[in-house]
Amino acid sequence: MSESPYRALAESVRRLVDATIRTEVGPGVVSTVTSRVDAATAQLRAALMPGSFGERRVADGQPLASGNVVIGIRNPVAPPLTMHHEPDGSVWTEFILGAPYEGPPGHVHGGICAMVLDHVLGATAHQPGRPAHTGTLTLRYLRPTPLNWPLRAEARVDRVEGRKVFASGQIVEVSGATVSAEGIFILPRTEAD
Amino acid sequence: MSESPYRALAESVRRLVDATIRTEVGPGVVSTVTSRVDAATAQLRAALMPGSFGERRVADGQPLASGNVVIGIRNPVAPPLTMHHEPDGSVWTEFILGAPYEGPPGHVHGGICAMVLDHVLGATAHQPGRPAHTGTLTLRYLRPTPLNWPLRAEARVDRVEGRKVFASGQIVEVSGATVSAEGIFILPRTEAD
Repeated sequence: MSESPYRALAESVRRLVDATIRTEVGPGVVSTVTSRVDAATAQLRAALMPGSFGERRVADGQPLASGNVVIGIRNPVAPPLTMHHEPDGSVWTEFILGAPYEGPPGHVHGGICAMVLDHVLGATAHQPGRPAHTGTLTLRYLRPTPLNWPLRAEARVDRVEGRKVFASGQIVEVSGATVSAEGIFILPRTEAD
Repeated sequence: MSESPYRALAESVRRLVDATIRTEVGPGVVSTVTSRVDAATAQLRAALMPGSFGERRVADGQPLASGNVVIGIRNPVAPPLTMHHEPDGSVWTEFILGAPYEGPPGHVHGGICAMVLDHVLGATAHQPGRPAHTGTLTLRYLRPTPLNWPLRAEARVDRVEGRKVFASGQIVEVSGATVSAEGIFILPRTEAD
């Protein structure tokens, strides 16, 4: 099965998530909608993979990352971000985060900024078939990151020492950087190590 | 209106999010469910607050934090975590994260661990009516954090210097810590500053 129906469903569920937070309709409508949602869930649960998407062992062309909380097109929690890799090894993504990612009123939660930067910095370190994992990550919060506003996250590799990749990056909006980050990402051992 | 119908709706949408990621039903059922979800969203959108929940200016007893991405009971993206404050100033929360929070297959995304720790460390610094914001946060990833497994996050204040609160904490599971964190959280100025 192609991914497209699943992608469309996840997009619809993202809109439902936003409306769930922001609705002002009364208790009667909310209860009706809750029943509808439960019925929809029951239909989907008629056939359910065990565990999580990344543990799936069916080879039908759906990437394991489809369930990823940052980039997964099947995961309604994911914005989802699209990573762009430049020839010089840098990585960037542009996105807008809405009501579901709120921390301080009207602003992106600092932890969501950390999540985005962990992923974008890590993406500079990944090699095909050799995903890096985070060793350390340091974040500096320069000023609040607005919700519902165009944002860009970007990262680059500063240097590599053996299996350690040192990366840095930031979240920027039109007025400048809001959060900067430095991290060390560890590549898995290969037969050569 | 009491929060309880909204809370129940958000709980239902969390189950839908999980099923959206993990379903193996065919394209026909997925399309039917997508239409059902769109209809539910339309009902909720009949009356919608502008912006985000934290920007809401209606005083009906619903806390501003109801939309928060970590603790918001109305936010289906939030697990949601419940913060417990001890008399000594430490904060802890116990939780299980499922498929929607995946990074490496079968494991919690490192960025989600960062988000949880940002919130829990920050919670040690907050004072009534005086929310702290994150200044810096440093994370050390000790080993992978499993999905669908009991986790605990805990934090304490190490020292306070003026408006700066130095906090540290960790995510632990039964075998020990998976991620540790140190952070500096900044309290807003008061008239006394």
